[in-house]
Amino acid sequence: MTDLTPAGAAALDAIDPLAGFRSAFVHDDSDPDLIYLDGNSLGRLPTASLDLADDVLRRQWGRRLIRSWNEGWFETPQRIGDRIAELVGAGPDEVVLADSTSVVLYKAAVAALKARPGRTRILTDDLNFPSDIQVLRAAAEAAGPDHEVVVLPTDSIHGPVAGLADALVGQGGADVALVSLSHVAYRSGWCWDLAATTRIVHEAGALVLWDLCHSVGVVPIDLGAADADLAVGCTYKYLNGGPGSPALLYVNADRTELRNPLRGWYGSDDPMGFGFDAGPADGASRFLTGTPPILSTALVEPGVDLTLEAGMDRIRAKSVALTERFISLADLHLAPLGFEVRTPRDPGQRGSHVALFHAEAQAVSQALVNEALVISDYRPPDLVRFGFAPLYIGFTDVDEAVRRTVDIVESGGIDRWRGVQPVVP
Amino acid sequence: MTDLTPAGAAALDAIDPLAGFRSAFVHDDSDPDLIYLDGNSLGRLPTASLDLADDVLRRQWGRRLIRSWNEGWFETPQRIGDRIAELVGAGPDEVVLADSTSVVLYKAAVAALKARPGRTRILTDDLNFPSDIQVLRAAAEAAGPDHEVVVLPTDSIHGPVAGLADALVGQGGADVALVSLSHVAYRSGWCWDLAATTRIVHEAGALVLWDLCHSVGVVPIDLGAADADLAVGCTYKYLNGGPGSPALLYVNADRTELRNPLRGWYGSDDPMGFGFDAGPADGASRFLTGTPPILSTALVEPGVDLTLEAGMDRIRAKSVALTERFISLADLHLAPLGFEVRTPRDPGQRGSHVALFHAEAQAVSQALVNEALVISDYRPPDLVRFGFAPLYIGFTDVDEAVRRTVDIVESGGIDRWRGVQPVVP
Repeated sequence: MTDLTPAGAAALDAIDPLAGFRSAFVHDDSDPDLIYLDGNSLGRLPTASLDLADDVLRRQWGRRLIRSWNEGWFETPQRIGDRIAELVGAGPDEVVLADSTSVVLYKAAVAALKARPGRTRILTDDLNFPSDIQVLRAAAEAAGPDHEVVVLPTDSIHGPVAGLADALVGQGGADVALVSLSHVAYRSGWCWDLAATTRIVHEAGALVLWDLCHSVGVVPIDLGAADADLAVGCTYKYLNGGPGSPALLYVNADRTELRNPLRGWYGSDDPMGFGFDAGPADGASRFLTGTPPILSTALVEPGVDLTLEAGMDRIRAKSVALTERFISLADLHLAPLGFEVRTPRDPGQRGSHVALFHAEAQAVSQALVNEALVISDYRPPDLVRFGFAPLYIGFTDVDEAVRRTVDIVESGGIDRWRGVQPVVP
Repeated sequence: MTDLTPAGAAALDAIDPLAGFRSAFVHDDSDPDLIYLDGNSLGRLPTASLDLADDVLRRQWGRRLIRSWNEGWFETPQRIGDRIAELVGAGPDEVVLADSTSVVLYKAAVAALKARPGRTRILTDDLNFPSDIQVLRAAAEAAGPDHEVVVLPTDSIHGPVAGLADALVGQGGADVALVSLSHVAYRSGWCWDLAATTRIVHEAGALVLWDLCHSVGVVPIDLGAADADLAVGCTYKYLNGGPGSPALLYVNADRTELRNPLRGWYGSDDPMGFGFDAGPADGASRFLTGTPPILSTALVEPGVDLTLEAGMDRIRAKSVALTERFISLADLHLAPLGFEVRTPRDPGQRGSHVALFHAEAQAVSQALVNEALVISDYRPPDLVRFGFAPLYIGFTDVDEAVRRTVDIVESGGIDRWRGVQPVVP
């Protein structure tokens, strides 16, 4: 029986094998009451990133200047990509950092469509990021006038497992070139079975493109075992790479037929030859295009290092325990106040955040952020989202977040925040 | 009569109105002899960027966390774009920072091709970046199977002014959808007459897309007066934005028919609505796609501020004087050693760098960088390139660079560097 009292939380924190990682991140000593449950939007700043930034700026840029391209900069996207590969079950040269998630998603989707000539459909679902769906539509447009994106409907919590199978094996299945899904849905936290889903996509003759934004660094991923074709993901959420840090792109080493539709010098086999007719580089590097933003790229590494050091098994175990506790406490204390859990209750079906419905979700979220110092976020029209980053969130934080949410509602604190629109990517 | 003695250089430095800007950049006190003539590849680090980086990291990311998106981050691409607009004769909402130069070039080129249905050709020349030509080919492929890129030949020094006119008014001119050129050629330093060239492109019914990488911040540019359609450019060369800092993209406010082929949430008219069907934002913002790398983007601002403070007229005057002096000294001292100026001798036809031919250019460049501490760069097969950034290069530096080049050749210093391949973007 789980002890849902504050003493129970303290006891769990006391035996937490990841507790020591909290001090590897910057905390604001002037704001000790802040509870940061938005690491799924922007991870915290690793303290190691401060020294690294100082070195990249003062020594590498300031002193070594252009010579730094010869002294490590050039391989940055591949070097850090190889580290991330260890987190997602990929091999060397299968992962690079590049562009933004939207741009690499476009490249990957167009490449997949071109590799399945004669098939004209992209399947996705309405749990996917709206931005991904916009990008997939742009990719369909780039691939040809007959191409289209089909958005499968869901119950807004669970992925359309049966619906996807029907769409792939039923009428029209032979037209599907690509299935592109968010591994963990940004709203409900639904988590696809990556291997099983990849298998049914392949059985239908289509390719799969996973968006790992809300799973990489917090959910175990084995792209290699699943034989997934393509994947993209953010590095600024659970990997703590910094605001807008470049995306990760995974390209299965066996899918040599996949071509970068946006080829440029950085992805060529002779970037220093200055010829017009250079061919593509090997591996995922062929999907690079232009010069990477070195500062924002380099700072991805410390967060990846911390994640590898902590280990995905321990991270996942704590993530499940944190979300289980939050859900239990929400049922107990928040349901009577009009909240409702809108995240799968089976921990095997969710990532590391929990969405709560509330009729006044926007005002609740704003009051939590601005008055209760519980940094959560609002997803229209009616969800408050709480993310639990196991590297720096403890069980006491979970209890305290619930307690303050109760307070802010019972005290009428949300009244002041009706109609105030937040802006949070 | 120009005084080409060291005393003459010292006299020019003494009256240089921009001399004070040198101390606005970081210099390596442990390496006082370094002469940095590669600001056209990677500009120096502004000292103001150190404090700014510290604030972005420690306060904005570390303490304010996700709330910083509401406190300035979100508008970063537009805010700095509006500052750059002042440098290039553009208006508010006509310039944004985004992606890399290659990616924004792709977006702009595809947009232009789609806006000229029925026309299938892109014209460029062989002075353009090989990477630009690769990207233009990718854009042609995205626009349709009939599209092609025509690369006009040149004498490798001067732009094909007559050749371009012939290609536009002659047979095939009616098929040209887009002309895309580097305003200043990365090799020879050739500088197009931006207004006159834009006019003849428009007279042929085509659109023009300028690459400003080697001109922005050092050559006066008035895109508005020229009524140019589209432009892209680096911010890490003469603007000193840092390695791989995001590109600038200019979209003429009157060209409302131009559509971003790579639309994503950041370029939509309702980025926080989380809907699938958001329309495009107004202005150049509609060409944004994904979340920008905030650190690399924010650090573009200090270099832009310095450039605006110095003023393009003063920068251009000094740039011309520096390159004139270098060419005169090269004729005098380097021509006898096998060097030959491969940059237009008319200052109105060049940017701020000078290319010297040498049969052993690669070894010369390596010896200069590694032994003589003159940071120049090599452009295969036979050019050494010297860039003169007026904000931190003085006339004494010009003389000293020539003197050391003489020394390194006469002393046989280049012998040790034969076959050693540099890597410099």
